[in-house]
Amino acid sequence: MASAEDDLIAQYFRPLATHAGALGLIDDAAVLAASSEDIVVTTDAIVEGVHFLPGDPPETLARKALRVNLSDLAAKGAAPAGFVLTLALREVNERWLAPFAQALGEDAAIYNCPLLGGDTVSTPGPLMISVTIFGKLPAGTMVRRDGAKPDDIIAVTGTIGDAALGLACLKGKKLLDDASACETLVARYRTPQPRNALAEIIRTHANAAMDISDGLAGDLAKLCAASKVSATVEASAIPFSDQAERILSSGAAGVEMLIAGGDDYEILCTVPENHWDAFREAARATGVAVTGIGRVQNGHAAPVFLDVSGMPIALKRLSYSHF
Amino acid sequence: MASAEDDLIAQYFRPLATHAGALGLIDDAAVLAASSEDIVVTTDAIVEGVHFLPGDPPETLARKALRVNLSDLAAKGAAPAGFVLTLALREVNERWLAPFAQALGEDAAIYNCPLLGGDTVSTPGPLMISVTIFGKLPAGTMVRRDGAKPDDIIAVTGTIGDAALGLACLKGKKLLDDASACETLVARYRTPQPRNALAEIIRTHANAAMDISDGLAGDLAKLCAASKVSATVEASAIPFSDQAERILSSGAAGVEMLIAGGDDYEILCTVPENHWDAFREAARATGVAVTGIGRVQNGHAAPVFLDVSGMPIALKRLSYSHF
Repeated sequence: MASAEDDLIAQYFRPLATHAGALGLIDDAAVLAASSEDIVVTTDAIVEGVHFLPGDPPETLARKALRVNLSDLAAKGAAPAGFVLTLALREVNERWLAPFAQALGEDAAIYNCPLLGGDTVSTPGPLMISVTIFGKLPAGTMVRRDGAKPDDIIAVTGTIGDAALGLACLKGKKLLDDASACETLVARYRTPQPRNALAEIIRTHANAAMDISDGLAGDLAKLCAASKVSATVEASAIPFSDQAERILSSGAAGVEMLIAGGDDYEILCTVPENHWDAFREAARATGVAVTGIGRVQNGHAAPVFLDVSGMPIALKRLSYSHF
Repeated sequence: MASAEDDLIAQYFRPLATHAGALGLIDDAAVLAASSEDIVVTTDAIVEGVHFLPGDPPETLARKALRVNLSDLAAKGAAPAGFVLTLALREVNERWLAPFAQALGEDAAIYNCPLLGGDTVSTPGPLMISVTIFGKLPAGTMVRRDGAKPDDIIAVTGTIGDAALGLACLKGKKLLDDASACETLVARYRTPQPRNALAEIIRTHANAAMDISDGLAGDLAKLCAASKVSATVEASAIPFSDQAERILSSGAAGVEMLIAGGDDYEILCTVPENHWDAFREAARATGVAVTGIGRVQNGHAAPVFLDVSGMPIALKRLSYSHF
């Protein structure tokens, strides 16, 4: 009676549908119960050959597909509530699906974000994984892109540029002789670490926030444009990992690759000065590093990145574009 | 400053984001305001070469992508609240995007279902359009698949099998000499007519419902399995269009093609006998035909389709499967 798609769903994905509203995935729809909280919705898809490499392991693809969306929720100040999955597959391959579903289930549990439903379709083309995610937060408190105010301190979480370097490593670029350092960078590309632990802190202290997916420079430009402000960033203040610092020192890559590369999935936010100490203190308690890198400025000019001598760095590109 | 993706979104899709919660598509996320109603979520994707033909017009693709999801909401008894769109494109082609966005905007307005957000990604492969849609209904009232009770009357809206015949016409099968009849069937394949006008009536009167997307026979089997019941259907009671009746009479296609074909996007529901008259009366007022085709039965056997002599029709397949 059941189709191959039904069998596939029952075997691999029903165990992930732990939320009562998912109705065990036997219905066409899921229910998010009426609530006094706002629901935040966002969607991000990853495509083979575009957002990930054909050889990437199914485990990391599952985690990346979910985490790039979790990262959006974190930046908006929302707690995860669940997600729906659209999977476009060339074939039903158990050796791929089993570890994919296993890792997805682990992440769904870790981030308290159950599978609510989905659609599995066949495609003659590249594998595509599309996630639409739902978060909850107190009514009217979503942190938007367009709230940055002049004199706000610009902050980022974690370190910037590691994923871009990891992708370069995967593509065979010789950046470091140290294989374990390369592995660390590749892991940053394949398995983002969304900063959901900071969601409530962002909501409490930030005027504006977004996650960094297309490169710090380009995403800061977007945030400034939405907020109708400009910004100045001290490049020397941008937090880089030890691996990235070594690559920069050796000259194997320049700062542009780090700040205009994609896939960081760190949070970019602007915090008013009178919230800064409380913001840093609260963030420290979660174990996630936050670093002030510059200031929001009046004006409409593109953000400026200054080098150690105070001169603007000329960036040939701000971010990654798929078209 | 803006990337090609930002430009594309601003030009084609921002005009569709009429809901305040969409924030003009300048943020990473949309807000569905806190509500005393449940939110129903469902997602369906269509892939070039699988769910539609490479030559299908962008206008009908836009409508089909949204309407197959609207159809799910109708069957669940929910009013449309908005949708997010993931578009995987090989290239930014204005001659394709402009009519696509125009038609999508027209349907969003017709069905009162605004665009809330989305993701546009590049793909080297087939075009894919994925929609996740949101509906609202009074808390706890979603019509599920698993509520069918023995003796319920099984009903369908509209006519069954036209889309499958339309697809056969598009693939060059000679079913009718009459070109305008073929056009009617092709339109049924390309442009579903979701029965959202019936949503509240389904919620008021039906014990179980789903939309028919993979063929009446297979979808009834799914509904019965979920409800732990069986069913008997009189094939002669199934509503067919004039065009379908002519094709059946001529012998150019058999009943299996109509009841195991896909893409009907009509509602299949089960209604207790004491609600039947009120259900039909209410449906008549909306102008959507509803037809009783059989009865829910005790038991776990697969649904049986009886011919005019009361003999079970042997179906080689129940529905369309992509794998």
